[in-house]
Amino acid sequence: MIPGHLDADLMSALLAVAQGKAPADTVVRGGRLVNVYSEEVVVADVIISHGRVARVGSADRSIQEGTQVIEAAGAYVLPGYMEPHCHPWSLYNPDSLARHVLPWGNTAFVGELLPLQLLLSVEEVLGVLESLQRGHPRWFWSVRIAGQSRQAILAAFPMDNLQRLLDAPGVVQLAETTSWPRILVGNQALLERMAMAKKRGLRVDGHGAGATAEKIASLAAAGFTADHESINLEEALERLRNGYHVMLRDSSLRPDLDGLLPLVQEARGLARLSVTSDGSGPAWLNDKGMIDGIVRKMVRAGVAIPRAVALASLNPATYLHLDEHLGGLAPGRCADLQVLRSFDGEPPEVVMVGGDVVARNGQLVNSWPAWEWQTWADQREPAVLSHAGKPEFYRPSGEPGQIVPVMQFTSAAITRAGEAVIGPDGWAENCVLAVLLSRDGKRWSKAWLGNFAPHLEGLATSYTTSCDYLVIGRDPQAMALAARRAFRGPGGIVVAEGGSVVAALDLEIKGVMSARPISEVLADWLCVDKAMRRAGYPFEELLFCLCFITCDFLPDLRLVADGLLAVKTDQILVPAEQL
Amino acid sequence: MIPGHLDADLMSALLAVAQGKAPADTVVRGGRLVNVYSEEVVVADVIISHGRVARVGSADRSIQEGTQVIEAAGAYVLPGYMEPHCHPWSLYNPDSLARHVLPWGNTAFVGELLPLQLLLSVEEVLGVLESLQRGHPRWFWSVRIAGQSRQAILAAFPMDNLQRLLDAPGVVQLAETTSWPRILVGNQALLERMAMAKKRGLRVDGHGAGATAEKIASLAAAGFTADHESINLEEALERLRNGYHVMLRDSSLRPDLDGLLPLVQEARGLARLSVTSDGSGPAWLNDKGMIDGIVRKMVRAGVAIPRAVALASLNPATYLHLDEHLGGLAPGRCADLQVLRSFDGEPPEVVMVGGDVVARNGQLVNSWPAWEWQTWADQREPAVLSHAGKPEFYRPSGEPGQIVPVMQFTSAAITRAGEAVIGPDGWAENCVLAVLLSRDGKRWSKAWLGNFAPHLEGLATSYTTSCDYLVIGRDPQAMALAARRAFRGPGGIVVAEGGSVVAALDLEIKGVMSARPISEVLADWLCVDKAMRRAGYPFEELLFCLCFITCDFLPDLRLVADGLLAVKTDQILVPAEQL
Repeated sequence: MIPGHLDADLMSALLAVAQGKAPADTVVRGGRLVNVYSEEVVVADVIISHGRVARVGSADRSIQEGTQVIEAAGAYVLPGYMEPHCHPWSLYNPDSLARHVLPWGNTAFVGELLPLQLLLSVEEVLGVLESLQRGHPRWFWSVRIAGQSRQAILAAFPMDNLQRLLDAPGVVQLAETTSWPRILVGNQALLERMAMAKKRGLRVDGHGAGATAEKIASLAAAGFTADHESINLEEALERLRNGYHVMLRDSSLRPDLDGLLPLVQEARGLARLSVTSDGSGPAWLNDKGMIDGIVRKMVRAGVAIPRAVALASLNPATYLHLDEHLGGLAPGRCADLQVLRSFDGEPPEVVMVGGDVVARNGQLVNSWPAWEWQTWADQREPAVLSHAGKPEFYRPSGEPGQIVPVMQFTSAAITRAGEAVIGPDGWAENCVLAVLLSRDGKRWSKAWLGNFAPHLEGLATSYTTSCDYLVIGRDPQAMALAARRAFRGPGGIVVAEGGSVVAALDLEIKGVMSARPISEVLADWLCVDKAMRRAGYPFEELLFCLCFITCDFLPDLRLVADGLLAVKTDQILVPAEQL
Repeated sequence: MIPGHLDADLMSALLAVAQGKAPADTVVRGGRLVNVYSEEVVVADVIISHGRVARVGSADRSIQEGTQVIEAAGAYVLPGYMEPHCHPWSLYNPDSLARHVLPWGNTAFVGELLPLQLLLSVEEVLGVLESLQRGHPRWFWSVRIAGQSRQAILAAFPMDNLQRLLDAPGVVQLAETTSWPRILVGNQALLERMAMAKKRGLRVDGHGAGATAEKIASLAAAGFTADHESINLEEALERLRNGYHVMLRDSSLRPDLDGLLPLVQEARGLARLSVTSDGSGPAWLNDKGMIDGIVRKMVRAGVAIPRAVALASLNPATYLHLDEHLGGLAPGRCADLQVLRSFDGEPPEVVMVGGDVVARNGQLVNSWPAWEWQTWADQREPAVLSHAGKPEFYRPSGEPGQIVPVMQFTSAAITRAGEAVIGPDGWAENCVLAVLLSRDGKRWSKAWLGNFAPHLEGLATSYTTSCDYLVIGRDPQAMALAARRAFRGPGGIVVAEGGSVVAALDLEIKGVMSARPISEVLADWLCVDKAMRRAGYPFEELLFCLCFITCDFLPDLRLVADGLLAVKTDQILVPAEQL
């Protein structure tokens, strides 16, 4: 539901209610209104008509027969939260994500579209965006101008497709351009794509992870307007100084907020800060929430409530030119709000979107029809299964005693280039084998992984940032078994152990997203996670570790469809082979 | 000069300079940079290329042969100021105004268009806007949807003209709708005009002078997004609470800032505050400046420099969706800046717009070609002169002893309804006569003025908010003489006394604006002001008092083309007559 502009009829209707000449549809009565504009908490009624706030104040004249009254005495009444930068396809899908977090006050989302842009035609993507507008959540979109992996940097993003996407309703910005080093060297194709967004007045989200202060400044000169990759105070300040809107991140992708909080507490450049989860695995989402969890953390840290809420509502809405519709409870704004007893961790008593109650006490009410993803996501199994399902495909070909490069994991996201010796059985010592089969079924490449999950027998996953298929393990039988199970449909994540499948998470939607509710996805995911812990996986969030194995903007070695890549030198150490 | 969006070539050029791969065009070296984003003052170079800031930091690699270096050590370097709401036709014209204040760091203006919309065809208005873009100042525009006086509320503002204006380059908002009471009663024509702006994503400037808190709230429901009419802290807070962008005003129109400063000092809702002069007579402009004077006042009052500057740069630019171009000195932004030794009252050592030095030490340099106003402003005298130039036209017709209504002035802007007795000579006791001749030459109306300038013999002016012609005095000979001199061309303001013209200010451009530099206008204006003081004018700014006599949204009685109007009841007490 993208809010439309105020037309004369709506103005007229709101005026009548604002002046007490017509009754309200709904009144939220007597709550402690969190006013993000004046940075106050004041007792006030919220008078609602036609899905918008008509007035904030005393509702005496507005309550008549037919007016729904929601008692909020003693509770906070605050705007719904806006997530300005999320990847709504981390096992969950946009619809299941929104259903899960909407009852916690997260009412507006700016979703990024990488897998949809990679896997669907532009007509299909436009159809998906339109279909999501039929539900209660407010969906806005960030369009990618380039892929996240080497081979997909531009091929999958032709200019005319991008133009059509940029003109789609709800598109508010370009999504993070992870290939910012290419921008720094003046890649014309990327700059032209950025200029397309500038011409339309759209924002240009940056992704300066690991960029030096000088590079951050240069990217601003190229037109980046926001960044969510500050991992410490100095990085956040540097971005602020260079004119960025700075999104402070906290989630299982990276829990960075603790270190960034002083910026909020010191009240510097406050209006140009907002908060984001970026990406969260289903476990973090379930345990800690989305933007709601970040606001609770800020309030616990002593940030004044109106200020903490503004970073999650008014500030992103203003940045995205949506502040006449969203981000605060003032006349004319959409009645997207929460009635929240405290910031201690319980869900809002009431969540409204556009004046409709959509959740109570953590549960959706008046839910919207199921999302019809089946129309564009067929259930065919991937072409690579014929290879990936056979144990002999994983027979190592190394010469005993040979020194081979190893992707040595130092964290869930970072690898260093290491080396290992091929043992008498043809396998690199202390390593597991990773085989990547390209989405198009034409090529495969392989790498040895160190410090990943040394005892892993077999894992197969279709959830990678490049949308390629990945099989990992040290037992060809188990690898083939996992692949057969994972890729018997569009995809999934499967672990095989002791001759059996011990954990399986189906990703019915293009092998990237599950169609099921997050609670069910979570149960399966926890089995995968548990199996991987048994296999020795030592880091935090496994989900992004798996996803990022193909992510060639992260250091040091990555496995991409072209082969084993040394990221900094952009050299292929072990080339891919034809399937 | 409206900034265009960043295109790929410009991005590429800025990147090269940002990275030290290409030399800067200009470097402002070693100044104390006022960073409005991070609210800091730090020593830094500003590296400029292609009219934009390429980088802020150390310019070591950027200075090469051909690079212009401006030394700023010890001085502040700050963004040019933006005036978000001004009426650039208060005797001066947009071009002469900008030439006068640009050397003081005022580089961007949002000008309101009332007289142009009233007096010119839409093609001519578009031509005027285009012609002003050829100079150095950054001109943006507020379009009126209605006039400021009763008879011109809508007649002069047809929808199709408005559409063409709203789509013109540089138009960023609807100008203040002074007829807000008509909006409160749901005037469909006005609401439809507001919706036209909403559809285009333009802001809608309010003008809630004197509106109660409840009315302010209702006007927000109707879509008003900003207001500049707060005259005390409570009014400003009320607007902030209702989601308005609040412009704090200080000028000869109303010097309100002192009372509003606590809002800035307490740092509440700071990002949604900006400062404006609204309107300034030439004397105030000359003595106290425009936005520069307001910033000095804030700094003197103890507001931190980055914060005071932000209210005059980043905040209005953000509100008007211009923050990727204007409002701060960060990479990618237009190089509109000032080198200012102190905030004590001297002019900037250097003012730049788009990377070009446009002023030094209070004087324009590299000025732009003269503004060609002659192409649309012919020099014909008004049709009303045949009547207005004759003493017999002012012979009073009252019956001795008759009680007549009087516009009794209580301040320069406010009148109360009073009464007077017609004396034996046919004149109301202690009053002067005001005669309004409608612009179209068809009607005249009259009123008695009390406490205005009791000894005034004759004044004629074409400078009124309705663009009608006004003659005031107590001596028909002097009134006719003033009118003959004032209206022998397009118009002006003239005072006659003792049988002579004692002060005359020609307004060659449509009788509303002078084509001459403000310094010359000021000299003539001071003569008018002095003559009026001799005649007993008792209040502050005479200019707006004269202008507002026809302004039918100000209390209590006003003289409009329909007759003498009681504003609150919208009743004509003395109807106009045919000429």
